[in-house]
Amino acid sequence: RNRVNRGQMKPGRDTSDSSTQTESRTEAHFPRLSEVNLYTLLSLWMEMFPRKPPEDGDRDQVTRPSSLLVQPQPSAPSAPSGSASQVHETGLVVVRAGKVVGLHCSGPELHAGQGAVLHHGGALAGCQLYFSRRPCATCLKMLINVGVSLISFWPGDPEVSILVSASGGDAVEEVKLDAMATKILKSNGRPHICVPLQPLVPGLAQFICETSRACDFMETALPKQPGRDPEELYNRQRISHLNRFTRHFLVESPQQHQEMLRHMDLDSFCPDPCLWNLRNHMRELVEVLASVVAGLPQPDYGFYREQCGSPEPSPPPHPGLSQDVARHCIIQARLLSYRTEDPKVGVGAVIWSKRQSAVCDGTGDLYLLGCGYNAYPTGSQYAEYPQLGSKQERARQRCKYRYIVHAEQNALTFMNHPVKADEASVMFVTKCPCDECVPLIRGAGITHIYTTDQDRDKNKGDISYLKFSGWKNISKFIWQRSPSACAATSSSHQSKWEQTCATLTF
Amino acid sequence: RNRVNRGQMKPGRDTSDSSTQTESRTEAHFPRLSEVNLYTLLSLWMEMFPRKPPEDGDRDQVTRPSSLLVQPQPSAPSAPSGSASQVHETGLVVVRAGKVVGLHCSGPELHAGQGAVLHHGGALAGCQLYFSRRPCATCLKMLINVGVSLISFWPGDPEVSILVSASGGDAVEEVKLDAMATKILKSNGRPHICVPLQPLVPGLAQFICETSRACDFMETALPKQPGRDPEELYNRQRISHLNRFTRHFLVESPQQHQEMLRHMDLDSFCPDPCLWNLRNHMRELVEVLASVVAGLPQPDYGFYREQCGSPEPSPPPHPGLSQDVARHCIIQARLLSYRTEDPKVGVGAVIWSKRQSAVCDGTGDLYLLGCGYNAYPTGSQYAEYPQLGSKQERARQRCKYRYIVHAEQNALTFMNHPVKADEASVMFVTKCPCDECVPLIRGAGITHIYTTDQDRDKNKGDISYLKFSGWKNISKFIWQRSPSACAATSSSHQSKWEQTCATLTF
Amino acid sequence: RNRVNRGQMKPGRDTSDSSTQTESRTEAHFPRLSEVNLYTLLSLWMEMFPRKPPEDGDRDQVTRPSSLLVQPQPSAPSAPSGSASQVHETGLVVVRAGKVVGLHCSGPELHAGQGAVLHHGGALAGCQLYFSRRPCATCLKMLINVGVSLISFWPGDPEVSILVSASGGDAVEEVKLDAMATKILKSNGRPHICVPLQPLVPGLAQFICETSRACDFMETALPKQPGRDPEELYNRQRISHLNRFTRHFLVESPQQHQEMLRHMDLDSFCPDPCLWNLRNHMRELVEVLASVVAGLPQPDYGFYREQCGSPEPSPPPHPGLSQDVARHCIIQARLLSYRTEDPKVGVGAVIWSKRQSAVCDGTGDLYLLGCGYNAYPTGSQYAEYPQLGSKQERARQRCKYRYIVHAEQNALTFMNHPVKADEASVMFVTKCPCDECVPLIRGAGITHIYTTDQDRDKNKGDISYLKFSGWKNISKFIWQRSPSACAATSSSHQSKWEQTCATLTF
Repeated sequence: RNRVNRGQMKPGRDTSDSSTQTESRTEAHFPRLSEVNLYTLLSLWMEMFPRKPPEDGDRDQVTRPSSLLVQPQPSAPSAPSGSASQVHETGLVVVRAGKVVGLHCSGPELHAGQGAVLHHGGALAGCQLYFSRRPCATCLKMLINVGVSLISFWPGDPEVSILVSASGGDAVEEVKLDAMATKILKSNGRPHICVPLQPLVPGLAQFICETSRACDFMETALPKQPGRDPEELYNRQRISHLNRFTRHFLVESPQQHQEMLRHMDLDSFCPDPCLWNLRNHMRELVEVLASVVAGLPQPDYGFYREQCGSPEPSPPPHPGLSQDVARHCIIQARLLSYRTEDPKVGVGAVIWSKRQSAVCDGTGDLYLLGCGYNAYPTGSQYAEYPQLGSKQERARQRCKYRYIVHAEQNALTFMNHPVKADEASVMFVTKCPCDECVPLIRGAGITHIYTTDQDRDKNKGDISYLKFSGWKNISKFIWQRSPSACAATSSSHQSKWEQTCATLTF
Repeated sequence: RNRVNRGQMKPGRDTSDSSTQTESRTEAHFPRLSEVNLYTLLSLWMEMFPRKPPEDGDRDQVTRPSSLLVQPQPSAPSAPSGSASQVHETGLVVVRAGKVVGLHCSGPELHAGQGAVLHHGGALAGCQLYFSRRPCATCLKMLINVGVSLISFWPGDPEVSILVSASGGDAVEEVKLDAMATKILKSNGRPHICVPLQPLVPGLAQFICETSRACDFMETALPKQPGRDPEELYNRQRISHLNRFTRHFLVESPQQHQEMLRHMDLDSFCPDPCLWNLRNHMRELVEVLASVVAGLPQPDYGFYREQCGSPEPSPPPHPGLSQDVARHCIIQARLLSYRTEDPKVGVGAVIWSKRQSAVCDGTGDLYLLGCGYNAYPTGSQYAEYPQLGSKQERARQRCKYRYIVHAEQNALTFMNHPVKADEASVMFVTKCPCDECVPLIRGAGITHIYTTDQDRDKNKGDISYLKFSGWKNISKFIWQRSPSACAATSSSHQSKWEQTCATLTF
Repeated sequence: RNRVNRGQMKPGRDTSDSSTQTESRTEAHFPRLSEVNLYTLLSLWMEMFPRKPPEDGDRDQVTRPSSLLVQPQPSAPSAPSGSASQVHETGLVVVRAGKVVGLHCSGPELHAGQGAVLHHGGALAGCQLYFSRRPCATCLKMLINVGVSLISFWPGDPEVSILVSASGGDAVEEVKLDAMATKILKSNGRPHICVPLQPLVPGLAQFICETSRACDFMETALPKQPGRDPEELYNRQRISHLNRFTRHFLVESPQQHQEMLRHMDLDSFCPDPCLWNLRNHMRELVEVLASVVAGLPQPDYGFYREQCGSPEPSPPPHPGLSQDVARHCIIQARLLSYRTEDPKVGVGAVIWSKRQSAVCDGTGDLYLLGCGYNAYPTGSQYAEYPQLGSKQERARQRCKYRYIVHAEQNALTFMNHPVKADEASVMFVTKCPCDECVPLIRGAGITHIYTTDQDRDKNKGDISYLKFSGWKNISKFIWQRSPSACAATSSSHQSKWEQTCATLTF
C-alpha cells in the first residue's frame, strides 16, 4: 500500500500502544483552513444536503435533476399562468462570535434564509451568514430586518436562477426585479454584503488531499480488501466528485459568468484578472471539497450499528438517519477538522438533534446543536501555549493534552441549548472519543454517536481510548464496509455487526 | 353606501383582479401612530382583556362591575377585619428594543406587573413598561428590582384605587402608604418613571375613524345585509364604546383628578393648561380606541372555523378561544396596523400561544409570542426606500414588495421563542396572508389563524393570495356574520360554516 | 431556656399578634456576610452535598470515607496498570451579575466544573466561579475556553489530591503535570484566577452563632421537649460539625500546607504571616458553616409533609427528596439569609428543580433554578432607603415593607428560566411565606415548599401570614420533630403529620 509521508495527520497506524501521537510531526506551523474558507466550504456542502423525497401529496412536487434542482419559488406570484420560476437550492452557514450556530439548506417550501429566520429569530442579530448563492430578495429583506451583520455569498448563479430564466423568458422580469431590490437593500448598507475571496494557504489543497486519502475512514476498511488499491479508489472517487461539483457550482463559460455578475450588480469582478481570480478561487475550494468527500468511499462503506455484547431489550425508539445524511454530517466534521490548532491531529465534531415537529426545512427534522474542532482555549493567541518539542520533552508534550480543548468538548460547550430529554441527539466525530470525552458526551445526554473505531481500546500514554467499548446507553454507529459488501468477499466477517441496515432505521 | 374617499387605507374593493393595491394613495406622508401612543393604547386595551369567570372555589371570588373591577389586593394585610382594599385591574405592555414582547393584565391573584416579572424574569432588565394605571408599591419594587428602564403609566385612578378608598375609609391608610413608598422608590431614580404625554399626529384620529369604518372586518359581512346602513351601525357602536371607555379611564371631574394627581405626587400636572392638556390627550386616545374597537361590529359577527372541503378525521385537540378573546386579539392587531410604514395598506399581526400550565394571570393560559406590522427592514431610516410613484413605474412599485417586511414576517421573526411543538399557537392578522407569508407561517408551526378572507384567491399582480385556500393542517377562523344571525335572515347561507360555535371549543 | 439578647435576628417569639417585627433591633448597621464569603461558604457546603449511592453496576464504584472522598479521575489515563488517581469531590458556585445561578458538585463521572460547562454552556461566559478546591487541568481548560471571568478556589488540597498522591507514588507525575498545565493556563491570563481572602466582618461569627441557635428551625420543635436543653444540644452539634469540617477542609500541619501551596504555584502565601492569615481565615469560615449547620438539629428532626385537611385524591407524582438533601438545601437558604439588607430579619430562599433526564452530576437530577435573600431593590445604594426609626414612626416602618424585596421574590424574579410544567420545582425558604409572596410562588408554578411554620396564621400588622394555611395544590413540608421521635416521647402528637416518612417519597 502507498502511504503518505508528508503532512500525514495521523501517525500511530502501527498498533504498538507505546507509541504516542506526538512524535511524527514537529513543524510548529502547518496549513489550516481560514475561517472564511471553512464557512464557504460548509455552505457549498450544505447545498448538497440529501433531501427526502416528498411524501404527502399536498406539498409541491420536488424533483432533483443531476446538477440543478429547481422548484417553485414561494414568493413569486408574477407569472399568472402558474408556471414557476426556477429556484436553486441554497446552503447557509450561520456564525455567531466565531462559532457555527446554524447549518441550513432550502427545503420544499422555505429557502435556506427563511428557514434560518424561523429557527433562530431575533438571535440572528449580529450574526454572519455564508450562503452558497446570492439569496433572493425576500430572504434578503428578512435577514436585513432581523439585523444580521454580514451576508456573504458565492457569486455563481443566484438562488433565483439567471441561467434558467435567460432561456425560459417568463421569469426574466422576476430576476430583474429581484436584482433591483437587492441593489436597494444592499445600498441600505447595514449588513456587509460581500463575496468570499480568500485564497487557500499554500500547500493546503495538497495537504487536505493527502490526509483525506489516509484518514481513518479510508484506513478502517481498506486493509480488509487485498484486491483493491486504496489510492486508486480514492483518486477515482475524487475526480468523480470534482466533476460533479464543478458542474454544479461553477459557471461554465467566463462570458456567461461576466453577464451574471453584471446582473447581480457585481461589475467590479468582471474585468480580468479579477474574474480569473474569482473563478480560480472557486475551483480551489471545489477541489478541496472533492478531496474531503472522496475520503468517505462509496458505496460499499457506511455507518453500521454496533451490536452490544449484552443483548439490550429495546434500543431507544428514534427515527432513522439514512446513510446519505450520516455521510453528509461526518463530512461536515471532516471539514471542521481542518481548522484544528493541534498540528498532530485534526478532529472535528458535529451534533445534530431531531426536533419533534417537522419544519419545512431542507434538513427535515434535524437541526444543528453545536460543532467544534480541537483547539487551544477560546481567546488564546496562536502559539501562546508551548508547541511540540523533542522526544526528551515527553512530559511537556503530555502536558499539552491538558490545555488542548478536544473537538467533542468544544461542540458540547457551545451547543445552542442543552440536549432536550425527549429528542434524539447525534454526535458525529472524526475520531474515536477518548477517555476524557466519553463521560462528557454521556453527561450531556447524547443518544447516538457516529465515528470510526481506529484507536479504540488503545492506551497511548498521553491519551487513551479504553472507555469507548464499555460505554452503554448510547447507540454506536461505526464506519465500516457494508455487511452486504463483506458478504460478497467473505462470509466469516459479519458476526459483530448488524446485517440488515443498508438504510438505518434506528 | 357611503364610502370614505380620503385616507382610505384599502383600495381594491372592486373585485377585478387586475387592479393593484398601489394605485389609489400617492401621498408619501400619511398619519401614523407614534410608538408611545401605540403602547399606551395597547395598555389601555389590555386592561379590558376579557377574564374568565372563576371556576374553582378556592380562588378569591372575582366579579366584574360595569366600569371598575375591584378585588382583594394580595399585598394588603393592613385591614385586620379582612375587608379587602379596592384594586383596579391594570393593563401592561412590555417593550424591548422597540418590539412589544409582552402584553399582560391583572388576574385573579397577580397584578399585571407581578405577572410580567414571573413570566419574563431577568429578561425584563432594560425593558420599557407601559401601564394603564400607576402600579402598586409591590409591583413597583419588584420591577425596579429586576431593572426595567422605564415605567410609564396613565395617571388616572391608580391600581390601588384612590377613588374607592376615599369613600371607603378603611383602605385610606393603605393608599397613603402606597403613595409614600412610590415616592421613595421613584426617588431611587434608576428607571425613568413617567406619564405618556404625546399628542396625536394631526388628522390621525379622523384617519383611524374612517379606515376603521371601511376595514375588512366591516366590509366582509355588511353587503350581505341590505337592510342595515353600515355607517350608522359603525357610528352607533363607536359612541357606545366611547362612553364606556371614558367612564372607565377618565376621572370625571377635573377637581377630583387634581386631588388624585397630588396623591400620586404629580403636582406639576395640576395647574392649567397642564391638566387640560393631560385630560384632552387622554380623551383623544380613548376616541382612537373606540374607533378601532367599533370596526369589529357586535354581536352578530365573529370568527368561525372554516370547514375544510376534505373531511379531516380529527382537528388538533386544543382548548378553545372565546369570541371575546379572539375579538380582543384582532383589535390588538388592528392597533398595531396604524404603525405601518406602508402608505398603501397597514397590516398588523399578533401571535399568542397556550401554555401547558395555567398561571394566575389575567390572560389565563395565553401568552404573547410576538407581534408586528408591515414596515421597511428594522433600522431603516424612514423614506430610505423609494416611495410610490406614478402608474408608469409599475415595475418599481412591484419591486417595493421585495423590501417591505410583512406584518406576519415581523411577528414571526421577533417571536420571544420558537413555537413549542406541544402548544397551540394562534396568529391574528388583519388581512388574509399572501403567498409569500403562507409557507412562513406554516414553517413556523402556527396551528391556528384568525383573519378575514377579503382578498382570498386573488392575484393582484404584485401580490397574490392563491395559497391560503389550499392550506391544510391549520385551523382557519374567518371573520363573518354569525351562523345564527345568518339563519335569521336566510337559511341558505350556512352550509359552508360550522353552526354550533357561539363559543368556540376548537 | 437561655435566649440571645444581642443581635437577635428574629423577635416576635411572643405569640401576641399585635407585636410587630420592627421593634427589637434599632441599629442601622449590623454584621452581614460579604459576597465573596457567602460564595465561598456555599462552595464549601456544596462539596458536602449528599450523594446517592450508585445503583447500576456499569458506573464506577463510589464510596465515601469519613473526610476524603476519592474516585477515579476521568481524565487520568496515565497509570497503565489501571490504578486510579485520587480525586476530591468539589463544590462550585456560579455567579452572574451578582446572582448565584448555579450550585454544583462532583458526581460519579463528572467533576463540578465539567458539570457546570455541560449545564450552562456558553452562558458561563463572563461568570464568576467559586470552587471549594483548585479544579483539575481538564476543568480549567474547559472553563477558560468557555470564557468565565473569574475562578476562585480555596487553596487546600486540590481536586487531584496532592496529599494522597504524595504517599501513593503512582499519581505523583499526574499531579505535577496538572500543576504545570494550571500554571500555563493561568499565565493565559484571561480569567482572573485567585484565592478568596476576605476576613469576616467583626462580630459576624458570634452573630451567626447566636442567631443560628435561636432560629426558627431550633425554636420550632424544642419547647416540646422539656427534658433537653436546646443550647446544650446546639453546642454539642456545632462542635461535632466543626471538627468534621476542619478535618475535611483544613490541611492539618502548616508545613504540609506550605508544600501544597508550592505545588500549586502559590508560593506567595507560604511565608508567615500570610500563611497564618490564610489558615485563620479558613478556620473562621469553617466555624460559621458549623454554626449554621448546627441550627438544624439531627437526627430527631426533619421535614415532614403536612396532610391537608381535605383528603386529596392523589398527590403530584414526583420522585422523592431525602431528608439529607432537604436539610442541605435549607442550609443553603440559611447561608443566603446572612446577606440580608433588612436588619430585622434575614430570610433566604432557594429553588431547585428536577430535570427529566439524569445527568452524571453530583446533585443528581436536581438543578438550581434560583435563589435570593431579602434586600432593597437591585442597584440600590445601601441606606438609600429610610432605615428604621422609633416606635412613633410606625407608619413609616410599615412603609418599609413596600420597598424591601422578599427572599422568595428575589429567588423567583431571577430564576434561570421559568418553571417547566413537567418538572417538580421545590422552594426552600427559611421563614413561612407571607401573604404577599404566596400568590407569587403559586403563580410561578412551584410545586413543593419546605419551610417552618413559625409565624403561620399570624397577622403582625405590617406583614401577615394568613394565606399559607389555606394554600392548596402545593406539597408543604414543615420542619419538625420526626414522628418516630415524637412517638417515643408521647403518642398524642402525631395526628397532624404523616408518620411513615423517615425518607420522603413524595
